[in-house]
Parts: sequence; structure tokens; C-alpha cells
Amino acid sequence: MRYEKPTRVGTQNRKSMKIIKSLLSVFLLVGGIGGYVLPRQTTMKTTAYRNLLPVPSSVTFKSGRLTVGADFSAATNGFSDQRLLSAIQRASRRIELRTGLEFKRATVDAATATLVVECKTAGKAIPALDEDESYSLDVTDKQASLKANTVVGAIRGLETFLQLIEGDQNGYFIPSVNIQDKPRFAWRGLLIDSCRHFQPVEVIKRELDGMAAVKMNVLHWHLTEDQGFRVEVRKYPKLHEMGSDGLYYTQEQIREVVAYATERGIRVVPEFDMPGHATSWLVGYPELGSGPGPYQIIRKWGIFDAALDPTRDEVYKFIDGFLGEMAALFPDAYMHIGGDESNGKQWKENPRIQAFMKEKNIKDTEALQAYFTAKVQTIVAKHKKRMIGWDEIYSPEMPKNIVIHSWRGPESLAKAATNGYAGILSSGYYLDHMRPAAQHYAVDPIPANSTLTEQQKELILGGEACMWSEYISPETIDSRIWPRLGAIAERLWSPSTITDVDDMYRRTTALGIQLEVFGLTNETNMDRLMRNLAGSTDIGSLKTLVELVEPLQGYNRGKAHPSTQMTPLTRLVDAAKPESATGRSFAKAVDEFLMDAPNFRAHREEMSKNLGLWRDVNLSLEPTFDRSPVLTEVRPLAKDLSQISQAALEAISHLSSSNSVTPEWRDATLAMLAEAIKHDQAAVGLSIIPSVKQLVIAAAELDQLKTSTPAEWSKRVKTLATEKPKNGRR
Amino acid sequence: MRYEKPTRVGTQNRKSMKIIKSLLSVFLLVGGIGGYVLPRQTTMKTTAYRNLLPVPSSVTFKSGRLTVGADFSAATNGFSDQRLLSAIQRASRRIELRTGLEFKRATVDAATATLVVECKTAGKAIPALDEDESYSLDVTDKQASLKANTVVGAIRGLETFLQLIEGDQNGYFIPSVNIQDKPRFAWRGLLIDSCRHFQPVEVIKRELDGMAAVKMNVLHWHLTEDQGFRVEVRKYPKLHEMGSDGLYYTQEQIREVVAYATERGIRVVPEFDMPGHATSWLVGYPELGSGPGPYQIIRKWGIFDAALDPTRDEVYKFIDGFLGEMAALFPDAYMHIGGDESNGKQWKENPRIQAFMKEKNIKDTEALQAYFTAKVQTIVAKHKKRMIGWDEIYSPEMPKNIVIHSWRGPESLAKAATNGYAGILSSGYYLDHMRPAAQHYAVDPIPANSTLTEQQKELILGGEACMWSEYISPETIDSRIWPRLGAIAERLWSPSTITDVDDMYRRTTALGIQLEVFGLTNETNMDRLMRNLAGSTDIGSLKTLVELVEPLQGYNRGKAHPSTQMTPLTRLVDAAKPESATGRSFAKAVDEFLMDAPNFRAHREEMSKNLGLWRDVNLSLEPTFDRSPVLTEVRPLAKDLSQISQAALEAISHLSSSNSVTPEWRDATLAMLAEAIKHDQAAVGLSIIPSVKQLVIAAAELDQLKTSTPAEWSKRVKTLATEKPKNGRR
Repeated sequence: MRYEKPTRVGTQNRKSMKIIKSLLSVFLLVGGIGGYVLPRQTTMKTTAYRNLLPVPSSVTFKSGRLTVGADFSAATNGFSDQRLLSAIQRASRRIELRTGLEFKRATVDAATATLVVECKTAGKAIPALDEDESYSLDVTDKQASLKANTVVGAIRGLETFLQLIEGDQNGYFIPSVNIQDKPRFAWRGLLIDSCRHFQPVEVIKRELDGMAAVKMNVLHWHLTEDQGFRVEVRKYPKLHEMGSDGLYYTQEQIREVVAYATERGIRVVPEFDMPGHATSWLVGYPELGSGPGPYQIIRKWGIFDAALDPTRDEVYKFIDGFLGEMAALFPDAYMHIGGDESNGKQWKENPRIQAFMKEKNIKDTEALQAYFTAKVQTIVAKHKKRMIGWDEIYSPEMPKNIVIHSWRGPESLAKAATNGYAGILSSGYYLDHMRPAAQHYAVDPIPANSTLTEQQKELILGGEACMWSEYISPETIDSRIWPRLGAIAERLWSPSTITDVDDMYRRTTALGIQLEVFGLTNETNMDRLMRNLAGSTDIGSLKTLVELVEPLQGYNRGKAHPSTQMTPLTRLVDAAKPESATGRSFAKAVDEFLMDAPNFRAHREEMSKNLGLWRDVNLSLEPTFDRSPVLTEVRPLAKDLSQISQAALEAISHLSSSNSVTPEWRDATLAMLAEAIKHDQAAVGLSIIPSVKQLVIAAAELDQLKTSTPAEWSKRVKTLATEKPKNGRR
Repeated sequence: MRYEKPTRVGTQNRKSMKIIKSLLSVFLLVGGIGGYVLPRQTTMKTTAYRNLLPVPSSVTFKSGRLTVGADFSAATNGFSDQRLLSAIQRASRRIELRTGLEFKRATVDAATATLVVECKTAGKAIPALDEDESYSLDVTDKQASLKANTVVGAIRGLETFLQLIEGDQNGYFIPSVNIQDKPRFAWRGLLIDSCRHFQPVEVIKRELDGMAAVKMNVLHWHLTEDQGFRVEVRKYPKLHEMGSDGLYYTQEQIREVVAYATERGIRVVPEFDMPGHATSWLVGYPELGSGPGPYQIIRKWGIFDAALDPTRDEVYKFIDGFLGEMAALFPDAYMHIGGDESNGKQWKENPRIQAFMKEKNIKDTEALQAYFTAKVQTIVAKHKKRMIGWDEIYSPEMPKNIVIHSWRGPESLAKAATNGYAGILSSGYYLDHMRPAAQHYAVDPIPANSTLTEQQKELILGGEACMWSEYISPETIDSRIWPRLGAIAERLWSPSTITDVDDMYRRTTALGIQLEVFGLTNETNMDRLMRNLAGSTDIGSLKTLVELVEPLQGYNRGKAHPSTQMTPLTRLVDAAKPESATGRSFAKAVDEFLMDAPNFRAHREEMSKNLGLWRDVNLSLEPTFDRSPVLTEVRPLAKDLSQISQAALEAISHLSSSNSVTPEWRDATLAMLAEAIKHDQAAVGLSIIPSVKQLVIAAAELDQLKTSTPAEWSKRVKTLATEKPKNGRR
């Protein structure tokens, strides 16, 4: 199923588009055709994959189009069931909401329907790892024909169908196309941490909608943590009653979410983290713990000492009762038992546990955890589930049917595979680290240089993005997950050769807009947070600033600003998106401007205009700062932006007029930039700093241009600008 | 409780502010103080009621301020219960979310707490019409003291407390103030129609949050209609099973909503509309109907023929069983039985019913409805509820304890009061009519010219805003209700003398921002709809256009664009707010510009700049129009805007240069404006047309300025511009 060969369509299309582009240039030069309509339309057509995300295994666009008008209709041909009909109805409704068209809802047969869905079987009643998700979609100017072996395959194809809809002056349509598609990896998941900050059912549902849109198929639901126990347990009610502040999912709600996911062909794998990360269990049942107790729900972030006691039979009996109830509640074949970051402190400090280890000849706390994990595995197996857990559950004694979930990296996964264990990758897919989508996009569960055998590669099942929730609220979670998750979804579904970063950004941007139509809030809530910060609906200047910043990466936010479960997540950093699109396009403009040496004309006007605007944001925000003390932390940032923009303008002016700068100006400016990077009060950084540094160094290196080509020179400038970064942020 | 005397504070404050203003002018003239900081601060202080909405009965601001910092704390003094503690906790959390501060959550006593809440009793366990909602709030620089007789009173006071928080360069604070407050009317409601478009529980909850913020106390929940039966009925399950498309509230959800409302001191009055508006009942139980059946859920809008059969005992037995179950589910003392718009058609066409009328000597279908209503009233009374219903339930034979709900107007209410019946007003408060807040604000349940005696006035209990849902979805409902409901809430709570429209708009705008922090979506979802329309995150020009339009008023949208329950509510009209703030401020600028005759300098630059922008929107939207056929209906509108803006620019230019226009120009331009008004395809109108007409007429009347004062002249221009409007829109 994996290592799908790359489609040739992309290359072919790109070639023919080059020809069209050249023709266009001629038209534009002679002024034969109105200046702006044609290039725009062409741009749309030159993108080989249009808005498809993830890119299918094989795509061939053809000439012609299928009109999508008020007479649109859909029908099944052959097999049909409620899940398939609901999926078709959902898809139709989405087209209506997007196009504003109202369809007739008349019953049509397969011969006359706009879209015919031909599905061979229902497939598995409960979405499973070995489900056949393949489909084909053939669109002509008469009809769209979607074929699949299973309903889940058809559901994947319907999402592709939706992504193909476009509009132009003649109305909405779908381009003629032939698509053959199936996933590269069978396990394509998103972990949602409902513990550190509780996420209501409606949030989970809308993430499921988003996941379905990009063909992801596993919701890994992190349900227990030091900071909260989030599922109703009838056998041991003190778990959710005392461990959750009343914020937990009832079993009815769990069933509702599972049903919702099943409708979309998504598995729900619950995680019950043990033996560590378990403080919230012990609030109600301190007797399960390894320390003296009593325990309270943890409000801070980090790794804590509380751990289940691995030496006592009562603990395993409890786990048996608990996991038994959960096994009945969650129909998926897998059960995640966590297993990560148990620090062994309570075990080392408990004389009884120490005596037990001595008696059983268990050499250290890692070995004790292996002992615990093995016992839990038998319990999980008894309840007819396969166990999955984080890296730490791996030991050579474990049965081969467990799955290793790697937060450590592809190497640990490869090592497990070498020993015959299946695994999935999450290292490199941590959405809470606020890294650019491009970085996640480059992480492959089976890297190109992998030395695994084909058989071993079969054991790499896929991967999961992780949305840990120390710093996310129901209001911000969508903007943290989306649209970056689209890049990971593509890495896990599409052929490994699909790696064009610019095109990925173009398509994830389109995804972001589509998702909002489905009810996600990835764009909407950002403005809402800004209105709260500004105390006004007039957020123009604040938005300009916010769009230039990015939250600190990795764990630096916590370092800059220690916080707790109670800290309001309504600061500027929460309104900022993980990636600054403005910063990205500025970086691109600077690259092209420097490549245009010695003329320095490319993007000059546009960059100067923007920089002028950014320089003045500080001033125009003064009244807002004055009435919103919550923005006090942002004042130095706005001041920095002003200075940085001014420096960039000066550098551009020097370059454009071929006037060298003084060494004093260079040193002072670089020092200013280095200082600006250090401003972490607001837990954000200015995305344009690296590009401005490039401009400053370019101005200082102007003389070198005489002895090298523009390409060599601009490359050298870029190297100098990225050398020994003085902060660890990027 | 009613006809509270006007507070004098407003006037006093305004006077002292005048003095400060004059001082300031002196400062500014001599340039002694930095030019822009002081005026801004002063503006904030001159607004006598700051952000208080509704304005309390009595307010006295004093010098000094209470700091709101991270050490903020709240405590009760004396009586306390769970509802009060929850309300205090909610209020504290809102302060945290707004200010970004994290409070310490230490237990404090009344002596040291920042806010002390002293509440005498719990009050009624279930919010009731005769609940004491009064409170007093005294804020000094040491402490805020909130006193109330009941928890509901304290809840009202907490909302006032929240509205008083401000920020400046020194941080967040509450100005020292003394407030004595109680409502003018006891019944201050919002009707939500969950039938025509179903509104999920989370929508109802967020509206309850909004209602609590403006001290409203009745959710009138319209639960049954021709288009949907929205409540689970265990005794007669085919009601919700067959009458709702699966979109109904379970009894558990109803209890959840009632509990949520009770926590906020809000009554929930359910409406079960009968004998008309009842098609959805008959889908499952056709035997209750007066026609032959079978029945289907209605998908269109309007008045339909289906009606319960008033002649058969089985029907009353059914109503008894149904209302009995509902009486247990909804704890409020009142039950609304609708009764409106039963057209009698099925009754006239049914020979058996005609025979029954003859036999009982019932002269017409109105009398037959009175017969029906009287029987239903005894059932309602049997279940220990007081009956409320629309105007039509009134007949002189009814017992005096029923309440008349007037959609016909204050006169019908006054008539009922004259006959000894209590009533509430909804005529003039229909939010779905898309009228300006100022229009609702001017409607008083007891108009100033009322001839009722004091005793009769006591029977006017208050009013209810109505949010009928033909054209609202869960996505747009907030922007249709808010912030306009704030104006109605104030009319029903505040002294009748609080009538400053500009200040109302200033305060409802502030309310709109606050509500979003509580989770409402009145601003957020508008942009989301625009991104869907534009298929892009770049919605600048589209937003400029949307902010200039207003949905057609009254029932004109349906006339322009007949639609059904399935019609997607994602068009431009859905993204447009009921009122254009831009249009309102442009109208004001035009008024002041004309008053500034013959110089015509006031606002000239700003108006010209805006008009230039509006003129070019058409052009900049071309690419968006091209790729979004859903906006095809908007093209003519953008073209109109361009022409209209151009005409306004020409008029301004003529006025500024004292050049008369030709009669030809005047006639052609007025004709163009009249045509523009007729463009209804998009179901919106351009808000600036009346003001532009004023400018055009002013340019044509320039000569008249020689013989009259600027005030006389501009008044005359305005009169001419509003004479015999050629459309019925405003």
C-alpha cells in the first residue's frame, strides 16, 4: 500500500503550462489582451493539483468540465447504506453552503445524476486499520463517477470531489479529471489532549470534520492526565467525579463522538496514560498511588512524580475493571496505555516498592515499568484489544502484536521495526510546538535514507500529529491544528515524492477557508481575540502586528511566561497564528530582491510600502495600548518592529542607490536585531527578523557584488545572515 | 416598580464635563499639553453612563478608582449559595479572560476582598415574575460592595460590575461609583424560534449568556411550528420523531437549558403553538387535524391551513397529556399556547366541524378558536400554569389571570389592560425585520401618551424581542440578535427617560465586543461568511461593500427571493449586519457637512476619501466576482455603489466650489438613485442612498442658500430628500 509511485501528471502539466506562460508574456508585452484577467486565470490552471489536499496517488486532468448548478443531483448505483447516504447528503449540503445554490432534492437514478457513487460493499462496520480506503473518481462533462470497494473509500472520494469544485464567470464546475487514489500509510491520526485543557464535544466533532476533509482516519483521544481525568467511569466514579473539576465526557457523549467519527470513517483510539501522568486518578483513589498522598489535580505543566503502584494486585484489578469498561465503550481494536515519562521518583522513595524490586530482582525503575507494562498488556489483551503505547513501553520481552508510538523519532521506530514491532511516528508532528508546516511536511515516517527492508517498512503503520493542550483553549485549538495538519495529512496519505512546499502552502491556505464552511474556527477566533485585546472592533493596526508575529517555538512560551491551567489564553500570543504568512511572503520577496542584484528592483516598491506601514504600527497602536493594559507586554514589540522596519528601509535604500553602509551602521543595526530577538515578554517573535538581517548584511556586503554573480552573492548573504544564530528560537 | 424617576446624575456629569472641555480647549489652543492624549481620555469621561447597558435607575460617579489587578478577589458576606458562588466565579473568570490577568484564587474574607457580595436571601428557587431583582453597588478606591435582597439581584449587579471595568496606562480599574438599580418592567424577554431553523443547545446557551449580560429575564422558547416540532415528548413520541427531521431537544437537553437559565436568573417560558402553526404535530398524529391529511413538515414560509380539530374530545385529551408532560418539564409558572394566525380554512372546509359550530351556535371561526382557547386554558390551569398567548387568545370571556402577548401593538395591549388583562409587548421588537436599533429603542410598552390609569399600567408587564428564524441559521443568529437586543433590554429595564440614541449606539457597540468574550459570535461569523463568499482570506473590498449594505426590511427579503427551509443562508445578505454603522456615520457626516454651509468643510476630506474608496470597490471586486458565482447577484449592487459614490463626489465638489448644478444633472442623478434603490436581487439595500440624495438635492438647491440660514437651508434639503420615497423600504 505504501511507496506509491509518483504521478507523472504534475510534470506534464507543468511543462504545458510553461508554454502557455510564454505565450502570455508575449500578449502582455504587446498589450494585446486586457492586462490582469488572463494571468489570474492561468495561475489557477498552472497549479497541477488545484486544491486537492492530500494529493491523490494519480491525477489526470482533462479538458472539459462538469457544471454544478441548481440541478445538481447525486445517486448511488448498486450497494447503498445509511452511512453512505448520509455522507452524500453531507457533501451535497456543503456544496449548497459554499455556492449558495439550493438543490432540488428530487429522486434521481444513476443514469441522470450529476454524481454517481458506486460502492461495492459496506466495508467494516467499525473503521479498522486494514480498511480499504481506495477509490477512483472520473469526471466528464456529463457526469462524475465515484467508485470504491467500501463506504469509507467512497467517503474519501467525496472529499476529493468537494475539493475539485471551482467557480468562474460561467458558474460553478468541476474540471474533467481521472483520479485513482489510495493512502500510503494506513494509520493517519491526530492526537487531541482533552486533559490539560478540556475540549467540549462540539470541538471534537469539528476537528473530526476537518480530519475527514484531509482523509485522516484516527482520532487519538488523550483522556487522562495529571491535570484531568476526562471520561465517565461507572465502576469507579471517583475517577471523573474528583479528577476533572466536572469537565469530563459522559459515556453517552463518548458514544456520540465515536458514532460521529464512524460516520466519517475515522477510528477513535482512547489513551489512558499509566503508570505516570496519572495524578488525577489518585485524587479519588489515592490507594492506587506509589506515594503517601493525598493527591490534588495538578494545575501546572511538566512531568510529575505521581505514579500507579506496580507492586500491588489491587492496582491491576482496578486497571482490569477500568479498562474492561473502556474496552466496551470504545469499539476500536486498539487501546493506548500511554506509558511515557514516568520518572520513577515515587517508586524510588517507597521502601515497600524498593523491597518488591529486590525480591523480584528488578534492577531499576525502567525494568519495573516493563514489569508493569507486561501485566497491563495481558489485561488489554484479555479485553480483546491490541495495546499501543509511547516509546517507553517497548522492551524485547513484549509480544509482537503491540504498537510502538514514537515521540522520540524515526530511529526509535526503525529500531522497533527491526525487532519486529509495528509503530507509528509522532516525533516531528507536534503541533503545539508552533513550528512551520514546512517543517512537519519534511518529516517522513520512512525517511528516504531508511535502511529498513521492505518487510520491516510494512511495520511502519503511519503517524499521528499531536495537539497537546497546555496552551490551547476551545477558542484557539482550531488555529493551532489547522491548516498545518493538512501538511501532515498529505505526508501520510500522498506519495512520498509530493514535496513542493510552495504548493503545499497554497493548498493548505485554500483548505483553511474550506474548513470554516464546515464550522471550524481557525480564522474566525483570531479576530475575536484581537477585538477582546483591543476592546474595539477596529483592529486594523493590531492585526497588522499580529500577522507579523509567531508564538515562541518548542517549550519557550512556558519559559518566557510560566503558566497554569487557569492562565487566561487570551493574550496576543493566542491571537497569533503558528506561522506568519506575511513573514513567509516577505522572506520570499527579500530573496528575490537580492537575487535581482545589482538592480534591486524586484519587489522593492511593495516591500518599502509594507515596511513603512510596519514602522508606523507602533504609533497607531498607542491609543489601543493606552486603554488595554493586557497589551502592555506588546509595547516593546511594536517599538522593535518600528526600528526593524526602519533598518530594513535604510538597507533597501543603500542597496538601491549602491551606497555602501558604514561598519558602524552595520554593527549597530545587527546589535539592534539581536536585541529584538531577545524580547520574549509577549511570548512571540517577529517573523521578519531573519529577512531584515539578510537585507542589512547585503547592504554591508555591497562591495562583494563586484566580484561575484548576483546568485553567488545573494547566496553568500543568506549564509552570513543565518550563521550562528544568537538565540535558540529557530 | 415602573416609571422610575430619571437619574439626575447624567445631567450633572454632563455639566461638569463641559467645564473640563472648555479648559481643555484652552490648553489645546495654547499648545500647553500634548495634543492627542488628553482629548481622548476626556471623551471617555464625558460619557455619563460609560459602558453601562441597560442604564441603571440611579448612577453617581465619584472621583477615585478601584484597581483591578492580579490580586483581585471576591467574597460573600452573610448568605451564600451555590448559584451565587457560581455567578461570582463566572464573573471573575470573565475579568481574567478580558484582562489577561490570572487571579490568585486564595480564600479571602469580606474585609479584604476586592469585591464583597452581600445577599440577603436565595430568593425564589425558580426565577419568577415577582422576583426582586434590585441591587446596589458601591465602589470606592478600597472595595466594591454589591448588595441585593436575592441572588438574582446580585447576579444583575455582577453584570453591572463587569461593565464598569476600564483600562488605561495605569492598568485596569473600576471608577468609584454609587448605583441603585431595579428594573422598570418585570418581564423582559427574548423569543427564540427554534422551529423554522433549528438552533442547537449551544446556541441557546450563548444567547442566555448575552441576555444575562443585559439583564433580560425571560427566554420565550418557540418550540412547535408548521416547520418543526422541536421537543421530545415521551407520551406521544411521533411528535418529535416524525415532526422534526431528527432535529429536536431531548428532555435532558431541555433540563440542561432550564438549569443554565436558572443559574442566570432567567425564566424559560415554552411556547406550544395551537390550534394553527401546528402542521408538524399532524405528521405523526394526523387524526388531530381538521383536514383530511396526510401531513408533511412544511418547508416554506407563511401561514398554512393545518389546524387542530377543536370539536373532538380526543384532541383535548391529547393536549392534556402533552401539556401535562411539558408542565412537569418546564418549571416556569407560565405556559405559552401561541394561538396566532389560525386562518380557519380547514375548519370552514370540514362539514363535521361546520355542523358542530351550528349545533353549538358558534358564529364564526374566531368564535370557534375562542371556544378552543377556553378549553385549553382549563387544561393549562389544571397543570398549575398560567396561560399566555398571542393577541388572538383574548376574548372577554377568558379568566383574568391569562397574559396577552401582543404582536399587534401597544393599543391592543392597552385595550386588554383596560379590560383587566395583563400583557406584554412584542410589536415593534421583531428582530427578524432587520430594522435599526433606534427604531426598537423608540417603542415603549407604555408610550408617553398612554391614557391608562396607574392601576392599568401595572398590567403591562413588559415586553419580548422576537427572533423568528425564517432567515437565520446557528451561524447568523447572533448577529441578528446582537447588539440590537441591548437597545430593547434597556427600554425594558431603564427609566423611560433614557432615550439618547447616539449614546445607545455607543454603548451597544461596546456590548457587541464584550459579548464575544462570553462566546457569542455576532462579529466573528460575519467575516467567516465573507471568506466563504470570496473563497479567500483576503476579504477587504468585499467587507467594505458588505459594511455599506443592509438586508431588506420587513418581509421584503422573502419577496425578493422566495426561499425554503433548505435554502443556504450563506449569501451576501446573511453576511450583512442588520444595521450599517458605516451608513449611520456617513449620514451624520452629511448632516454636519450641510449644516456647515456655505463653507462646506466639515467632514469633507473624510467623506471624499471614503466615497473614492467606495467608488472603486466595484473594480477591485472583479476578480472575486469572477471566481465566486455566488456573488453574481452582487455585481449590479457594486456597480450602483460606484455610480452613487461618483454622484456624491460630484455633489460635494459642486457645493464646495459654490457651482450650481444643471437641472439635467439633478434629474439624471436622482433617477439613477431611484433605480439603485430598486435593485433587490441580492436582498440588500445600500445604506448611503438617502444621504447621497441629500447631497444631490443640496447641490441643486445651492441658490436657496442666499436667502436662508445654513440651519434652515440644510433642514429644507433634508425634508426634500425624504419626501415621498419611491420605495417602501424605509
